[in-house]
Amino acid sequence: MKDFFNVTPLETVLEWVSRTHRAGTEAIELFQSQGRVLAQDLVADDDLPPFARSTMDGYAVKARSTFGASEGTPAYLSVKGSVAMAERPYFRVEDGEAARIPTGGMVPENADSVVMIEHTDTLGETTIEVYRSVAPGQNVIEKGEDFKKGATVLEAGTLLRPQEAGVLAAFGKDPILVYKRPVIGIISTGDEVVPVTAVPRTGSIRDMNTHTLSGLVWQNGGTPRSYGIVKDQKAPLFQALERAVMETDMVLVSGGSSVGVRDFTLDAISSLADSKILVHGIAISPGKPTILASATGKFVWGIPGHVTSAMIVFCMVVKPFLDHLRGIALSSREAPEIRAILTRNVPSSQGRRDFIRVRLIKKGAALYAEPILGKSGLIHTMVRADGVIAVGMNDEGVLEGTEVQVIPI
Amino acid sequence: MKDFFNVTPLETVLEWVSRTHRAGTEAIELFQSQGRVLAQDLVADDDLPPFARSTMDGYAVKARSTFGASEGTPAYLSVKGSVAMAERPYFRVEDGEAARIPTGGMVPENADSVVMIEHTDTLGETTIEVYRSVAPGQNVIEKGEDFKKGATVLEAGTLLRPQEAGVLAAFGKDPILVYKRPVIGIISTGDEVVPVTAVPRTGSIRDMNTHTLSGLVWQNGGTPRSYGIVKDQKAPLFQALERAVMETDMVLVSGGSSVGVRDFTLDAISSLADSKILVHGIAISPGKPTILASATGKFVWGIPGHVTSAMIVFCMVVKPFLDHLRGIALSSREAPEIRAILTRNVPSSQGRRDFIRVRLIKKGAALYAEPILGKSGLIHTMVRADGVIAVGMNDEGVLEGTEVQVIPI
Repeated sequence: MKDFFNVTPLETVLEWVSRTHRAGTEAIELFQSQGRVLAQDLVADDDLPPFARSTMDGYAVKARSTFGASEGTPAYLSVKGSVAMAERPYFRVEDGEAARIPTGGMVPENADSVVMIEHTDTLGETTIEVYRSVAPGQNVIEKGEDFKKGATVLEAGTLLRPQEAGVLAAFGKDPILVYKRPVIGIISTGDEVVPVTAVPRTGSIRDMNTHTLSGLVWQNGGTPRSYGIVKDQKAPLFQALERAVMETDMVLVSGGSSVGVRDFTLDAISSLADSKILVHGIAISPGKPTILASATGKFVWGIPGHVTSAMIVFCMVVKPFLDHLRGIALSSREAPEIRAILTRNVPSSQGRRDFIRVRLIKKGAALYAEPILGKSGLIHTMVRADGVIAVGMNDEGVLEGTEVQVIPI
Repeated sequence: MKDFFNVTPLETVLEWVSRTHRAGTEAIELFQSQGRVLAQDLVADDDLPPFARSTMDGYAVKARSTFGASEGTPAYLSVKGSVAMAERPYFRVEDGEAARIPTGGMVPENADSVVMIEHTDTLGETTIEVYRSVAPGQNVIEKGEDFKKGATVLEAGTLLRPQEAGVLAAFGKDPILVYKRPVIGIISTGDEVVPVTAVPRTGSIRDMNTHTLSGLVWQNGGTPRSYGIVKDQKAPLFQALERAVMETDMVLVSGGSSVGVRDFTLDAISSLADSKILVHGIAISPGKPTILASATGKFVWGIPGHVTSAMIVFCMVVKPFLDHLRGIALSSREAPEIRAILTRNVPSSQGRRDFIRVRLIKKGAALYAEPILGKSGLIHTMVRADGVIAVGMNDEGVLEGTEVQVIPI
């Protein structure tokens, strides 16, 4: 047997990420912003909040008017007036004075703190007793304490969570400019593969890869577009590929695990206009036969047909390309890591990165990662899995009891 | 000051979860299943795979025909025929025989394993040399090895990920029956609150809570419906509430942090038909003034107005109710925990559960949780946060260096 390809290290494959274009931009309603990626910096055009606000119901005062106050020796302050919600107070607060203020009310000029109503008592119409001292700034959000005018509040490339929607709302940004959801073409291949709604005759199986890969694309902010199931022949694959490359931002071809089929996949991709095979074989397991190519500036992937391999290749190799396409900045938040203790030895081969499916098990205060054994053609191993661990190129395995990082899957 | 409410422990509040109804069910396309919740068990109506498949290109054999084979003393087998993809082989494989088979091909009757093509050589048309022995079952996925006919493959109440979509595809389930996305009504209150698109005059601020809460509802599989901003008066709030209770599955009213406003929120909720205040005050911080009520069998929440408090109350208190509404079974997968080392002492009060915002910081192999200080009215604290840690009712705080569990937020 000839050694039909030289594998590329994963790190080298990922260097192509930055050469991906990004999806275009569009304006959308803020209400629809979840999971989208901001396409321009948000710079504060005013202080937030734009005025000092009380965080309590109570009395706005100059803090020093309360210094030394206690249950035994209260401070006596004269009530200057009441702050109405949503209005600018027309008065100043001087030494020895107080102004009634609701939570969220604007702190009057000259006052620097708020005494909680619970720490006061009224003595007639215009005088209060204060039983505790407050420090300057206490129970007040200062003008600009959240964000100062001119500050960069959010950077282009930020993945929008609920709190980022809140910030955009605070600065009046609606609609907002975001990157378009990249459209990802998905082609399943295989003479033995039939559509989900068909009853497979003996020797055939239903198309799982279109659905697992579409799910992964949805989950990662893209819009999958299925180009159906293509038979193991060059011409129909070439036609499907040509259409998909034209109509989408990136294309995934799954299947072709047998050598012959891999060859004609490579052939069909190579026949695309302005095409180039960039990577043929990656030093990972599962996923070694993965192909990365470009055609008219778009990336085309040949992904192994085994359902589990296809999912792991997506998560470990394709996802960074999709993240880039959808506009996520490298500096943006990564998914937080999960750390767990490995429950048994995992052997591995040097010279490649092994991804091992694991199930997380909580026992008391500790979290364990239990390797899931099973062939990569078995989807039940992915249903049971909570994540994968990566075993390094230069490791011969990982010992039971080692703390490992689990990548959710 | 009267002690205007007795707080309820969080655990007691969460006991109401199981009394929530569940959203109805609907049939949807499998292609659109991500993040939805399965509404009926999936029982295998056949073995998966329905026939033994090869996982390699090679030769299907009876393993014992290869026992003892090596480079020096190969086994010689006669080639009985070729397995065509997607077809049932018309022949059996006996001792001393082999059949060419592609990856994914159906293993012929009587054969129990596959020799990789790399470990063979051809000797003329009908004979091969085999250089390595295989064990029974090697390089074969057995009939039913993924799932046996009659097995419960997925249970109702399972949140669908890409791998579950794959399993549903394998069993031909398209369309699938899922729970409807619950519709969650959102009402912002406050005389000082103006719509996002308005320019606030001094003393007013834009409506953040509608957008943070809507984002959280989207993120957790619900569909938010905004009922706008209601002034701090009982009548308009009552009207908005009445409509929202009628049109949605659950209602969130945010705002009303001042005592007077809290009172009229309570009043408006109490005036709804068939209403009952279930909880008024929860032993958590932030979030103590939270109200839980029911009206015509639906839950209505009064959530504090401070933007951070509102988000934390949603994540820690409201989310389990939404999970139940959308059909997620209690036994279903929880979000995996993140463990990190606290970078500084966090004080806390006994008798309540404190939620402390933290930022995750990776240093070498270790992950640290850095508490984010700042008033709960400041949204920048949530933008910086990766999660929260919970400090128990009976703890006076957590010491620097302690391993803590971080709940992503």
